[in-house]
Amino acid sequence: MSDSPDEFSLIERYFAPLSSGAIGALRLKDDVATLSIPEGHELVITTDAIVENVHFLSDDPSDLIARKALRVNLSDLTAKAADPFAYLLSLALPRHLADDAWLGPFARGLGEDQAIYGVHLIGGDTVATSGPLVINVTALGTVPQGAAVRRVGAQPGDKLFVTGSIGDGLLGLRALTGALDTLDPVLREDVVTRYRLPQPRVAFGPALRGVASASMDVSDGLVADIGHLAAASGVAAVLHLHRIPLGVAARAWADDQTERLFELATGGDDYEILFSVPPAKADDVVATAHALGVPISEIGVLEPGEGVSVVALDGQRLPAGKAGFNHF
Amino acid sequence: MSDSPDEFSLIERYFAPLSSGAIGALRLKDDVATLSIPEGHELVITTDAIVENVHFLSDDPSDLIARKALRVNLSDLTAKAADPFAYLLSLALPRHLADDAWLGPFARGLGEDQAIYGVHLIGGDTVATSGPLVINVTALGTVPQGAAVRRVGAQPGDKLFVTGSIGDGLLGLRALTGALDTLDPVLREDVVTRYRLPQPRVAFGPALRGVASASMDVSDGLVADIGHLAAASGVAAVLHLHRIPLGVAARAWADDQTERLFELATGGDDYEILFSVPPAKADDVVATAHALGVPISEIGVLEPGEGVSVVALDGQRLPAGKAGFNHF
Repeated sequence: MSDSPDEFSLIERYFAPLSSGAIGALRLKDDVATLSIPEGHELVITTDAIVENVHFLSDDPSDLIARKALRVNLSDLTAKAADPFAYLLSLALPRHLADDAWLGPFARGLGEDQAIYGVHLIGGDTVATSGPLVINVTALGTVPQGAAVRRVGAQPGDKLFVTGSIGDGLLGLRALTGALDTLDPVLREDVVTRYRLPQPRVAFGPALRGVASASMDVSDGLVADIGHLAAASGVAAVLHLHRIPLGVAARAWADDQTERLFELATGGDDYEILFSVPPAKADDVVATAHALGVPISEIGVLEPGEGVSVVALDGQRLPAGKAGFNHF
Repeated sequence: MSDSPDEFSLIERYFAPLSSGAIGALRLKDDVATLSIPEGHELVITTDAIVENVHFLSDDPSDLIARKALRVNLSDLTAKAADPFAYLLSLALPRHLADDAWLGPFARGLGEDQAIYGVHLIGGDTVATSGPLVINVTALGTVPQGAAVRRVGAQPGDKLFVTGSIGDGLLGLRALTGALDTLDPVLREDVVTRYRLPQPRVAFGPALRGVASASMDVSDGLVADIGHLAAASGVAAVLHLHRIPLGVAARAWADDQTERLFELATGGDDYEILFSVPPAKADDVVATAHALGVPISEIGVLEPGEGVSVVALDGQRLPAGKAGFNHF
């Protein structure tokens, strides 16, 4: 009917190769995939959409857009202690991107991440849109029965940890949108990469089992997500601003200024794991993280009550306010 | 940060109530859902997105848009002989729809279909978009191990059946877009309802197990989907145009004209089940369908070879061409 590629040729060319290795996906030639879950395990499932110019920028390289769409979902599974194994991909694709220049690297990026994280594409949908690109990924993982770690479960006295570093994504976005002029070029590249390509802590997921009392990934901003974890668990949280782990760029930019540290702690796009641990297990989790090569930092503690207190270096408690990304 | 509703209040108000009854969904207060699959069963999973002004019209009532998004996915599961039990919902929502006038009926529509089909919302995502509304549903079902019916498996000699009636969705779309002026008002209402609210044949799914050699739902147009089933199975298909089941409106509109029958057979948006049955099982499937109150019609046969032949009343074989909806 037209010279433009149809949905079936797009699937055959770009997406079917990504399903090889997943038997129940039948090379995406059917409308469904079938799956069996290993005995004694539960299925863990999550879905997250990313939208052009909300979660990524129009001129971000398409391989990195693809990988970000996948990784934000893997991050959710990992934070629940699950092992990811498969995903479905639904694209609402503007017609001008339905070509090899954009889709070629897009599929290649997914292939690279499949190799890194051991996941396969098992299904999807591709539809045309007159509006911004919307990429929806539904990711599947497994955990031993009952071993998933939720937002609920943290107790007063539990210590609060976070993996990796916070605030790089925010600085990367600012650098890309011209709102951060003074950064050293090498550091600029670091934070831009971090914004475009989150590093989900997939290796650390299983270490949470039987150890973390509650857990979630940091996507809306550290302060906001601590608030979510504390509210779900029915406890209050104390966050020590100066204990928040920062990368080189963020440390230079923040320069120990309370206001800037607070900005980093409320920026979002971190995709690290925030988790609570009973005091008796804190040494163990530090040792495990060290053995896995995953940096973790103790950033606060949970208390009876509700809400989040953010403590500055001088001991002053700052109002956390309504800190976090709001879509509407 | 703004007076507009945030994602969390939208979830709490509209979507969390839809997850009650699904224990692993935890009232959508976590980033994932956990699921166990009954022993001896497989999980069947599918994902389909619908886009404003592609799959539905901007001024369609939001309860019907919601139900269509869900039903096109239930239709896919059903056509594979699966029993649907849960779904995830991802919304890329224009800001002007993030209010009670639109979301209230949207959630109510989902609730009505949950009661009809016995499914629960177990997860999702809501993001803002500057473009058209995109609704992505990932639906989950179960089948006894090995009992799913695929596109692959049809043999030469198998009879081709379809449930319900074909072409109503096409006429409904034409009526809504002013391209069909002469229809009786009652019939117009019938086909408009059919376009906006597909009727997935959920009750018939289990009847396909052990009986149908191949199966799929009709969404791209009957001729195109017969082509997909035949190609996947490595057979040719013969479709008798005058055996295609038509509703009252379609029968009146087509008036036995070959060209119009062909249009109905290539229109799409039918969401009926197309399936093949070995001759020895044909009587059984007719009896089962009758007992279930699901109308089915024998519309053709499979042969050695490839491609689809469409046979007119006079016995002439029409070229099927590239008949079907193409997004790009």
